[in-house]
Amino acid sequence: MTETALFERIALIGIGLIGSSLARVIRAKGLARATAAYSRTAATRRRAAELGLVDQVIDDPAKAVAGADLVVIGVPVGASGEVAAAIAPGLAPGAIVTDVGSVKGAVIEAVRAALPEGVAFVPGHPIAGTEHSGPDAGFAELFEGRWCVLTPTADTDRRAVERVAALWRAAGSTVDLMSAEHHDTVLAITSHIPHLIAYNIVSTVADLEDRTKLEVIKYAAGGFRDFTRIAASDPVMWRDVFLNNRDAVLEMLATFNEDLARLQRAIRRNEGEVLEKIFTETRAIRRGVIEARQD
Amino acid sequence: MTETALFERIALIGIGLIGSSLARVIRAKGLARATAAYSRTAATRRRAAELGLVDQVIDDPAKAVAGADLVVIGVPVGASGEVAAAIAPGLAPGAIVTDVGSVKGAVIEAVRAALPEGVAFVPGHPIAGTEHSGPDAGFAELFEGRWCVLTPTADTDRRAVERVAALWRAAGSTVDLMSAEHHDTVLAITSHIPHLIAYNIVSTVADLEDRTKLEVIKYAAGGFRDFTRIAASDPVMWRDVFLNNRDAVLEMLATFNEDLARLQRAIRRNEGEVLEKIFTETRAIRRGVIEARQD
Repeated sequence: MTETALFERIALIGIGLIGSSLARVIRAKGLARATAAYSRTAATRRRAAELGLVDQVIDDPAKAVAGADLVVIGVPVGASGEVAAAIAPGLAPGAIVTDVGSVKGAVIEAVRAALPEGVAFVPGHPIAGTEHSGPDAGFAELFEGRWCVLTPTADTDRRAVERVAALWRAAGSTVDLMSAEHHDTVLAITSHIPHLIAYNIVSTVADLEDRTKLEVIKYAAGGFRDFTRIAASDPVMWRDVFLNNRDAVLEMLATFNEDLARLQRAIRRNEGEVLEKIFTETRAIRRGVIEARQD
Repeated sequence: MTETALFERIALIGIGLIGSSLARVIRAKGLARATAAYSRTAATRRRAAELGLVDQVIDDPAKAVAGADLVVIGVPVGASGEVAAAIAPGLAPGAIVTDVGSVKGAVIEAVRAALPEGVAFVPGHPIAGTEHSGPDAGFAELFEGRWCVLTPTADTDRRAVERVAALWRAAGSTVDLMSAEHHDTVLAITSHIPHLIAYNIVSTVADLEDRTKLEVIKYAAGGFRDFTRIAASDPVMWRDVFLNNRDAVLEMLATFNEDLARLQRAIRRNEGEVLEKIFTETRAIRRGVIEARQD
């Protein structure tokens, strides 16, 4: 075990954008003595092996986690419970299981029900990503300068939390702890609603007649292109996010709709001063994002 | 006049992001023998002079256009008519006036009413920009690889259209001709609605209580940050866009709202297959944008 190794053996269950980025960090920084990965999809397993992301690519989830002191679940959140049940028979006593899902409440419920006694579950969410998916899309710098939120419950082993936090810090992230409920509310605003809105506006264009659609694509540099990038994110991952964070998403969507009705009314009534005031206030938020170095 | 000069004297009325970028192109490529600029704001005039963007910065719009064979109006679209009236007394017979506004129907109406006989108005719109404003924000490469739409009417002088088109081609853009009405419909989708939605979601956050707002800023990398960038655009420019392209914006907003209601219903009813289908279709639009090199 090198000096920097934090774990004996890390098993990655799911080796997409996040899993493969983490694999690259672990390899580059020597954070584990050994690594293994499992993916449900044969093509993904093949590609992960070709890329040499881990020591072993294994086609059975329970075997993939054998001997691992850390297991990282990186699958669409709706599959978390099923995946936890599939790895459960192979988990070593004392192993730590963590995840990277964008929803925490529903994942905690599903995963904890499936894991055996003596295994610690540390729910986690690195706030990082791109619109690309799959093992080719990952890169070791993805987590640098970003936040990673861990949402332990009252009975989560504190040493396990600290060990998972150390992994994310080694990947370049700053770790924050909060409740799963609070995480899900904040992420509904910062991530889930923005994705829903982007999917919606791009979908509106997808339904236009062909000639207009081609023109919209042609002139996408006017603003639309940024939405197409966000709306190119993994469909299954995002389907699961919305279904598993339904209450917070629908609540925030109601506020979004009220606010949009206010803008719509101001446009219809020719109320320039209302529009200018709102458009000026939003600049302060942008300054905040730049100052927080999250731009 | 150098070999590449297309005009004797170009006067820029408004020297913000677009005007100052064009000034930099004109200077870098020697597209005019002489240049002048006017801005309503003293601080902007001072800054344009400090940056050496043009040969002369002039504090009177009518004097600024004296002797110019091309005048480029680059102001918020709501000010177009007023600015046209202010330059009218100084315009040389045979001068060409063009603009860069994001709305064409309302601008044509306002500008043509104010211009004297013997002056050609070529309505234009370079589909390029950033979220920054003012003379410091411009750069000579802004128009490279982008589209510039010109929307001449039946009685617009064709030689004048060709001379304005030549300027934009020299700046690196490809020129497209279409009707003002069609432009305003397409831009409502590609640019105006995306900006309205971005302003709206950032405004929703601006209204949150302080603690949550700070957290949203902190975790902006989840998707929200892209919206804050778009919503940092010039407030007066965008106020004017919405008020001057009201019908097309409200019509497209109605479609957006219908589509959003469909997503909302699918989430509420747990209809995963509906969400996945929509989120998959949007990827094709992204591929189109990338293939069109407008990403």
